[in-house]
Amino acid sequence: MKLIRFGPFGQEKPGIEIDGVRKDVSAHFSDYDRDFFNHDEVRKLEEIIRNNELPDVSENERWGAPIKRPGKVVCIGLNYSDHAKESGMAIPEEPIVFLKGSNTVVGPYDDVQIPRNSKKTDWEVELGIVIGKDASYLNSEAEAEDCIVGYAVSHDVSEREFQLERGGQWVKGKSCNTFNPIGPYLVTKDEVPDVNDLKMKLHVNGEQMQNGSSSTMIFNCNFIVHYLSQFMTLEAGDFVTTGTPPGIGGGMKPPQFLKKGDVVELYIDHLGSQKQKVKDWDE
Amino acid sequence: MKLIRFGPFGQEKPGIEIDGVRKDVSAHFSDYDRDFFNHDEVRKLEEIIRNNELPDVSENERWGAPIKRPGKVVCIGLNYSDHAKESGMAIPEEPIVFLKGSNTVVGPYDDVQIPRNSKKTDWEVELGIVIGKDASYLNSEAEAEDCIVGYAVSHDVSEREFQLERGGQWVKGKSCNTFNPIGPYLVTKDEVPDVNDLKMKLHVNGEQMQNGSSSTMIFNCNFIVHYLSQFMTLEAGDFVTTGTPPGIGGGMKPPQFLKKGDVVELYIDHLGSQKQKVKDWDE
Repeated sequence: MKLIRFGPFGQEKPGIEIDGVRKDVSAHFSDYDRDFFNHDEVRKLEEIIRNNELPDVSENERWGAPIKRPGKVVCIGLNYSDHAKESGMAIPEEPIVFLKGSNTVVGPYDDVQIPRNSKKTDWEVELGIVIGKDASYLNSEAEAEDCIVGYAVSHDVSEREFQLERGGQWVKGKSCNTFNPIGPYLVTKDEVPDVNDLKMKLHVNGEQMQNGSSSTMIFNCNFIVHYLSQFMTLEAGDFVTTGTPPGIGGGMKPPQFLKKGDVVELYIDHLGSQKQKVKDWDE
Repeated sequence: MKLIRFGPFGQEKPGIEIDGVRKDVSAHFSDYDRDFFNHDEVRKLEEIIRNNELPDVSENERWGAPIKRPGKVVCIGLNYSDHAKESGMAIPEEPIVFLKGSNTVVGPYDDVQIPRNSKKTDWEVELGIVIGKDASYLNSEAEAEDCIVGYAVSHDVSEREFQLERGGQWVKGKSCNTFNPIGPYLVTKDEVPDVNDLKMKLHVNGEQMQNGSSSTMIFNCNFIVHYLSQFMTLEAGDFVTTGTPPGIGGGMKPPQFLKKGDVVELYIDHLGSQKQKVKDWDE
């Protein structure tokens, strides 16, 4: 299934996309949140689709992120060997973990804002994992897989100066407003034939900047979820974004960053496409 | 005022402490959350206390954290010059910022759990700031002060091996279950005579380990809130914990860490005391 959400920011309703048409399921569920996933309402959603005539969502309705604002957005850094190389960093022996403020989450076609005083706002296409049930101290990668409900395209927008040149930890360059477009869909895992072999692309103004595959991830999705659960409780509805393939602006010679008016497009096999216009923070 | 919350974990109700007695205000407010603070309900709370006979909270009721689970827990690292020294790290030129998973927040007298495979679970008494209204790109420290509703004792429990020896960022040692007891109170700022001159103490099994003062903070509360707002939107009800004075276990010679059965007590002038028993992760 392809779960979607629609409506104004902060007032999104749950829906589903079937054969390219968005359907409204808000008569049956309040939202795609921790309760929804923990109570395995995904199965109930399947039944409802089978047994009900669902109203269409108007084409004018905004696309929201396909999950309610997560309790946590957990990010893996430098998870593609080529990307580590272009960043001039060593290949990590264990996953590098950081958090993004979950108030950065926006819809897949929302504008991305360049923060005030930013000179180095950069792009990162990433494969995102949606956690399907609360998970702590998982015993195996098989258990981890059982905790994944599905996947979504994630744009881990990053301000490189804030991240790397302002002292200490990365979060300063990762948690600016609008820095995490998610969607268009949460694609349930049964519809993703091989999550370890998905092509990923990112274009800026039509020019291809990133062109990779999840097959070159250092740590794969099941490994990551198992690993994280040893350090923190992952909650149903949490979002884990798993690192970016080569081609970030900061790794280009000379470096190239986003500017007002740019258009960024992201694509991952089976998970759909995003498109954002870049604006200034005060526009 | 001293805002408190009481009841079982995840089902806490809002209350108030007056002259050492906890009173129940849940008939008037649903919770101390983003909406409560953003709508300036603190003033309404003052009126309600003045004009109503409020029911007592039973002494048997658990003390919860004094705010609903925050959207973000933002932490400042190495914010006391002596603590930076004991950690063998340089004094930062700008605040070091990291996030703690907000699902780590527990009550001031709840047990603290030692994570599975932990050898270096450590203590940190900290002055916590509660954000009173949404704040982005604040123009001055005066504006920042206006966004602070009050303060609370925060225990920033930390696993040093996970934080410092497992690669990359600090979050792995900061987001384990029960790693952020907050409270007992949210003390509104009018009741804190000088937030830049508060004694802070932490004892383990009755032995004093930390003995500091907020007067030796490198970056003070208003500075921190102004600074953070340049990188992320702080939301009402978010919690900012501002670094720890000297005396952490990892800085002792030889290092000393928490073990099952230990009792940790924290104190900050005007903000009250916490007390936690240390347990294993599976107890």
